[in-house]
Amino acid sequence: MSALKDMPPAEPVASRASRIVIVGAGFAGLEAAKELGKAGLAVVLLDRQNHHLFQPLLYQVATAALSATDVAEPIRKILRRYESVQVLLGEVTSIDMAGRVLHLADGSSVSFDYLILATGATHSYFGHPEWGRIAPGLKTLADARKIRAQSLLAFERAERTIDPEEQARHMTIAIVGGGPTGVELAGSLAELSRYTLARDFRSARPEAARIMLIEAGPRILAAFSEKISDYAKRRLEKLGVEVFVGTRVEKIEKRSITFDGRTVPVGLVLWAAGVAASPLAAQLGAETDRTGRVLVDEAMRAKGLDKVFVMGDAAHFVGVDGKPLPGLAQVAKQQGRHLGRSLARHFRDGAPLEPFIYRGRGNTAIVGRHAAVFEQGRTKLTGWIAWLFWAVIHVYLLVGFQHRLMVSLQWLWRYITFERGARLVTDDSIESRPPEAAAAREAAPTIERADQP
Amino acid sequence: MSALKDMPPAEPVASRASRIVIVGAGFAGLEAAKELGKAGLAVVLLDRQNHHLFQPLLYQVATAALSATDVAEPIRKILRRYESVQVLLGEVTSIDMAGRVLHLADGSSVSFDYLILATGATHSYFGHPEWGRIAPGLKTLADARKIRAQSLLAFERAERTIDPEEQARHMTIAIVGGGPTGVELAGSLAELSRYTLARDFRSARPEAARIMLIEAGPRILAAFSEKISDYAKRRLEKLGVEVFVGTRVEKIEKRSITFDGRTVPVGLVLWAAGVAASPLAAQLGAETDRTGRVLVDEAMRAKGLDKVFVMGDAAHFVGVDGKPLPGLAQVAKQQGRHLGRSLARHFRDGAPLEPFIYRGRGNTAIVGRHAAVFEQGRTKLTGWIAWLFWAVIHVYLLVGFQHRLMVSLQWLWRYITFERGARLVTDDSIESRPPEAAAAREAAPTIERADQP
Repeated sequence: MSALKDMPPAEPVASRASRIVIVGAGFAGLEAAKELGKAGLAVVLLDRQNHHLFQPLLYQVATAALSATDVAEPIRKILRRYESVQVLLGEVTSIDMAGRVLHLADGSSVSFDYLILATGATHSYFGHPEWGRIAPGLKTLADARKIRAQSLLAFERAERTIDPEEQARHMTIAIVGGGPTGVELAGSLAELSRYTLARDFRSARPEAARIMLIEAGPRILAAFSEKISDYAKRRLEKLGVEVFVGTRVEKIEKRSITFDGRTVPVGLVLWAAGVAASPLAAQLGAETDRTGRVLVDEAMRAKGLDKVFVMGDAAHFVGVDGKPLPGLAQVAKQQGRHLGRSLARHFRDGAPLEPFIYRGRGNTAIVGRHAAVFEQGRTKLTGWIAWLFWAVIHVYLLVGFQHRLMVSLQWLWRYITFERGARLVTDDSIESRPPEAAAAREAAPTIERADQP
Repeated sequence: MSALKDMPPAEPVASRASRIVIVGAGFAGLEAAKELGKAGLAVVLLDRQNHHLFQPLLYQVATAALSATDVAEPIRKILRRYESVQVLLGEVTSIDMAGRVLHLADGSSVSFDYLILATGATHSYFGHPEWGRIAPGLKTLADARKIRAQSLLAFERAERTIDPEEQARHMTIAIVGGGPTGVELAGSLAELSRYTLARDFRSARPEAARIMLIEAGPRILAAFSEKISDYAKRRLEKLGVEVFVGTRVEKIEKRSITFDGRTVPVGLVLWAAGVAASPLAAQLGAETDRTGRVLVDEAMRAKGLDKVFVMGDAAHFVGVDGKPLPGLAQVAKQQGRHLGRSLARHFRDGAPLEPFIYRGRGNTAIVGRHAAVFEQGRTKLTGWIAWLFWAVIHVYLLVGFQHRLMVSLQWLWRYITFERGARLVTDDSIESRPPEAAAAREAAPTIERADQP
């Protein structure tokens, strides 16, 4: 692979004293920090959280199967051995490109010579920011805890009410967006209600919970082939999930969702539809696509900027097929590793930066117990065998986590017993507790529990 | 054991249709519900949380050694098999003794014939409620997450600042109260800073953290013998904890603590000093002691009230030695089991309620790795052997938890590696994030990171 065409041929060797700052310790940022650390280069890694999050399993925290600790690891711990890497907890609020300084939320600032932005993506509510207050998305541990608390509280409310319509409403959950996250949430919530919670309630019947998956496009799991989409739809329906495709959500309110011209009373709406690049990407002043991702060249340089790189979900990187690479963990991981190594060589002997080429290792998603999908090129797997693939891949990817063993054991346990250990609602996970309580008060004026045996 | 003297000799057999309501699913409430459930009696168990908390290990969640899931279990899951027991999530806000009705926070109400109050204890700041906003106590999972977040953030702040005095202040933690909780927190925080975090920072030196344990009485672990108090003090000092006894805290402020007439700058103050009975106990209108515990007779009946029982930390129960029983898990557990069985017999064949006699199974507390204390009567153990005792007892007591295996494995892992897996700070665990950020802004006006290599 030759040097990039827009790379100056005789760029001076960067000084080892150059200050490299990485923002974001997701898959991309973490890999880059490791590679630069291996080369002994001084790097500052900034993140607003103290932990790296294994996002592919976050839906399991949201559905009470795993605990937060199982899918998150302190960034410091992961990078402990790389002594030239300094990890700082801090939230970048603005980027001063002229002064080459990052301003943080606490008023301090961090200057940089080289900037690597790997801040990922956030939810996008398609011009309906008010939906965000009602329908939580799933990006952070706090999001996952909120979804877990709200899902479990929906069943608790159903148990408390004696009005059959209210009981049915509480146990109706709508999930907007039929991508992998939506499918995983729908499948996992269906299993939670049908198997795990079924025996635990006296008045409510969680196994009768209504779970709707609503996708605007013509099929769910659109990144996979049609055969796989069909399989996933059938499996979800077997679990009792109602799958709506080609269906655009018109309105989301506290107690109802409107689509296809009809309004359905709901207890909970989850958002798994739109993502947009982290708002920080726009601060670079570089060109972005319509979802806010920064256009980058083959070496991940932000177009038109000097010594500024963008990777992962925040970047619009055009793959060999001419389409932007998808927002996958493996893309981010490969990009981070590539850029880290490429920059390390560049600093060491002035080598030009090398272009990145994505190597897809296959794409997988899980629908439920024994039911996953896996696709790479012409290889298409579904069912049991894909489920095994999925489990092995995910346990393997939890590399460096002490929790690999724990997660495997918990899966095994859950598999045998249908039990879920993480069914916790804590006060700090209920953002909207006071309004919720107020709403319940309004809905249930002095219900006397006359239904006692 | 004969019937109680103040028990009417010919009390009519209670109807099996009587409505028994238990408030609180701690050790006492849960045991009572199980026993009544075994007898097939209709019981409503109300708790404001959806989980039972294994409080003796809560300090490990607060110090990042265990995750919330490891020490909490859904109440419904524990009581699943007892079909006559209905679990309801709800917070009792007031008790109408005349109407025999509990009013809940959401506006609904629950009536009762028999009431069993087992609502435990809460923090008491000795007439300084303003300290509560600064110095968190440790009673709930949310408390534990808050303490964990604040402890870890203290070290993150130390890493961020370049002012040596500020750095030292951030890494100074004061723990008020030298009972088991204070000792456990001090020992565990000392180990966290000396062993786990020591290698993870570049600018701050967590191993130099200053940890102070401040006790107003003449010795720490006052419930144990003097020999054991001495041992605990020596062990803590060996871990680098400064132990102050006979020392009354005069003032707690955001950034300092005042005792013995001097003011020490601190990054964090934790409260492990006073407890008081849950405020609900006072709502009964029965006689209470000065910490708000309801005076009960030998059958745990609230004095002067009809068919109202109080157990556990909310009750003032006079033991055979004439002193009130201590607020221990084993007291609560024995009381719950006893009352449940006694009431079941009473409902079955009109048997009079039996007096409760506490059987102490020994008292244990942990100072650190290899260092615990155990005392029963003349048996006094310290060090390695007590530590083994402590570990075996606690793993055993986690009965019914799927997590017993997990917890054991995690302990083993931590023991070998000094690692702590639960070092997570999440947005939802930082109650006071905006004020903190504001405070940091004020303290650190545009610190430029000039200390980069």
